[in-house]
Amino acid sequence: MKIIRDDNFFMNLAINIAKRNRGMTGVNPSVGCVVVSKSKTIISTGSTGTNGSPHAEKVALDGINIEAGSTLYTTLEPCFHSGKNPPCVNEIIKSGVKRVVVASLDKNPLVNGKGIKKLKNSGITVLKGVLTEETEDLYNEFFNRVSYGVPGINIKIASSADGKTALKNGKSKWITNKLSRNYGHKLRLFNDGIMVGINTILKDNPSLTCRLPGLTNFSPSRIVMDTNLKVPINSKIINTAEKNETIIFTSKFSSERKIKILKNKGVKVIKIPKTKQGLSLNSALKFLGKKEYNSLLIEGGNKLIASAITSSHLNKVFWFSSEKIIGEEGKPSIGKLNINNLDNSPNLFLQNMINLDNNYLKVYRVRK
Amino acid sequence: MKIIRDDNFFMNLAINIAKRNRGMTGVNPSVGCVVVSKSKTIISTGSTGTNGSPHAEKVALDGINIEAGSTLYTTLEPCFHSGKNPPCVNEIIKSGVKRVVVASLDKNPLVNGKGIKKLKNSGITVLKGVLTEETEDLYNEFFNRVSYGVPGINIKIASSADGKTALKNGKSKWITNKLSRNYGHKLRLFNDGIMVGINTILKDNPSLTCRLPGLTNFSPSRIVMDTNLKVPINSKIINTAEKNETIIFTSKFSSERKIKILKNKGVKVIKIPKTKQGLSLNSALKFLGKKEYNSLLIEGGNKLIASAITSSHLNKVFWFSSEKIIGEEGKPSIGKLNINNLDNSPNLFLQNMINLDNNYLKVYRVRK
Repeated sequence: MKIIRDDNFFMNLAINIAKRNRGMTGVNPSVGCVVVSKSKTIISTGSTGTNGSPHAEKVALDGINIEAGSTLYTTLEPCFHSGKNPPCVNEIIKSGVKRVVVASLDKNPLVNGKGIKKLKNSGITVLKGVLTEETEDLYNEFFNRVSYGVPGINIKIASSADGKTALKNGKSKWITNKLSRNYGHKLRLFNDGIMVGINTILKDNPSLTCRLPGLTNFSPSRIVMDTNLKVPINSKIINTAEKNETIIFTSKFSSERKIKILKNKGVKVIKIPKTKQGLSLNSALKFLGKKEYNSLLIEGGNKLIASAITSSHLNKVFWFSSEKIIGEEGKPSIGKLNINNLDNSPNLFLQNMINLDNNYLKVYRVRK
Repeated sequence: MKIIRDDNFFMNLAINIAKRNRGMTGVNPSVGCVVVSKSKTIISTGSTGTNGSPHAEKVALDGINIEAGSTLYTTLEPCFHSGKNPPCVNEIIKSGVKRVVVASLDKNPLVNGKGIKKLKNSGITVLKGVLTEETEDLYNEFFNRVSYGVPGINIKIASSADGKTALKNGKSKWITNKLSRNYGHKLRLFNDGIMVGINTILKDNPSLTCRLPGLTNFSPSRIVMDTNLKVPINSKIINTAEKNETIIFTSKFSSERKIKILKNKGVKVIKIPKTKQGLSLNSALKFLGKKEYNSLLIEGGNKLIASAITSSHLNKVFWFSSEKIIGEEGKPSIGKLNINNLDNSPNLFLQNMINLDNNYLKVYRVRK
C-alpha cells in the first residue's frame, strides 16, 4: 500500500487536533481523529475529551453517516480494552468505516497491535506508520509509563548564558524573560506532575502551578523530594494542598507529628528509601507510575536534575537560556555527575531551538 | 538625497569584496571598492591588498577610464592622510569620478569625515551611510584601536551544553565538534592576536595558529599572560616563536635568566603591572594598541575571560556549545565576576546563532 499525499494531509490535521487538548486529558493520551469521505471531504473530527473521556474516535463517529469509501484517521492505535471508556475498535467496526489510517501504535501492552489486528479481522483496511514521528511529543511519556511502569521525565532548566541558575547570593529573579517563563507554564500544563527538591521550596516558596489564563485547573500535581521533611507548614504549596494535589516524598526517619500536620492540610506524605545521592528518584517514579502519572517535569534543584539527566526514563530537557552572564560563583544548572570521560556524558541531541524574544529554548532529546 | 536600490546593491557587493581579504590586510582594515558606470555596469572592483597595500580604491581605479556619471562605492571613508599608502582621496579626485558612496565613516581621528569633506570640496557628490551596519564586523575592532589606542577584544568559548569547558580531570578533547573547531580557526584568521593564560599553555601545549589550508601565514600573534614566567622552554609556542610572533606578558619579578633564554628563542617578553586579579589586562592591551593590533581573540582560561568580559573594549563573544553535559564538577567557562545583582551582569545581546553540525555558535555583542 502506498502512502499518498492525502493521508499525510489528513493525519497532520488529526495531529493538530490532538495537540489542542494536550495536558488536559488526564491519564489518557490526547488523541486526534478525522473522518474523511471518498471525495476527500472532512465529515467530522474529534479529540480526546477533558480528563480523558470520551475518546477521540467516539467523538468523531458520533451521529454521522459513513458512506462507502470513507477513511478514519487517528493519531494513536484505537483502544481494544475496556477502561473507563468502551473499546474504540468496536465503535469503528460498528460505524461501517472500511479504511483506517493510524500514526502511532499504542505501546500499552493491553493494546499494542491488538486494536489494529481486530480491525483487520473485521475486514477493515489499516494503514499504519503515517507521520509516526510527528506524534512522538504527544505519546512518549505515556509509552514510558505503560512500558516501564514509571512516568517519562522532562527536565526544565532556566539559566544564564553561562549555565548558571542563580547568583552566589541566591538571587534568580529574573534570569530569563517573561516569554520564557510563560513557556515554562505551558510545560507545566503538558506534564502530570512537577517535581522539585526541598531547597527550591525553602529558597523560592513557589506555588508550582500552571498560571496560563484558563488553564490553571490543569496544573500538574506538585511533588517535593524532602528527605528530612523541612517543608514549611506555611509555604505556598502546603497552604494550597487542598486545591492542588501535593505529594511530599520523605525518608522513614521523618517526624510522624509533622507528617500528621501535613496530612491534615491535604498533603500526601510518602516514605521512600534513601540512596547515597538522597531520596531514591526511582522509588518516587515507581509510586507515581502506579498512580498513572505519565509525565513528570523536574524543575530543580541541580542535584535532582543531575539524577534525572542520567535516568533511563529521561524524555527531554527543556533548557531556557538568556544572554546574561553570571560567572563562576553562580549556581550551576546541573549537579555533580562524576564523569571521567566525555564518552560517558549523557547522550543527548539538540532536537529544536526556539527564539523566545532573544531568550533561547533548546530542546534536547535522548539519542537512541 | 535618496538611497536608491542600486546603491544598496553595489555597496553590498563592495562589502562582500571587503570580506574576502578579512584577516589578511595587516594593520589596515579590509576595504572593498566598486566602480559603476552611468548605465549601471560594473567597470572595476578592488580590495585592500594582502598586508594592507595597495588600498582598495587605488586597485579599483588603476588603469580605467572614468566616464561621466560613474559612481565609486567604498565600504570605508577614503583615507585622507599619507601612511604607507598615498591618500586615496587624491586618487579619487584625480580619476574624475563625480559621485562617491560610502558605507562607514573612518573613526580614525586622522580621517573621520575629512576624507569626505575634501571630496565634496572638489565638487564630488558624496552619499554616506549606505549599509553602514553591515560593515560593523569589518571595522569595529579597528575603530576601537584608533579611538582608544587599544585593540577590540573578542572572546572565544567552547563548552558543553551546561557551560563547562573541561571535565574535573582536565579532559576537554573534544567537547565541541570538528566544524566548531574549524570555525575557531577562522576566528584566529580574523584577529591580529590570540591571547591565553599560562594555564592553557601548561595544560594543552597548544600551537595557537590558524590551521586553515592556505591561511597559516595569516595566523595571529600568540600572546600569553604569564605572571611568574612558567612557560615551558620546550612548549610548542616557544619552539615556533621564530616563525610566529610570540609575546609573553609577565611581572617585574620574573627571572631575568629565563627572560634571556626566551628572547634568544625569538620571544618578546614584556613586563607589565599586576593587579589583584593577576597581570593587568589593560596594560597588555595598551602595549598591543601601540603595536597597532586592531583585534585580540581571547581563548581562555576562565579568569582571563572574566576580565575580558567586563572590559569596555569587549567587541564580541563567540560561544561554541555542544550537546554534551558535564555537570557541576566541570570547569566553568567564565571565572568569578562578583555579581550581586543581575542588573550588573555584562550587558550582552545575542546577535547571531549558527548551527555547526549540531554544535551551536552563539555570537554575543555588547548592548549599546
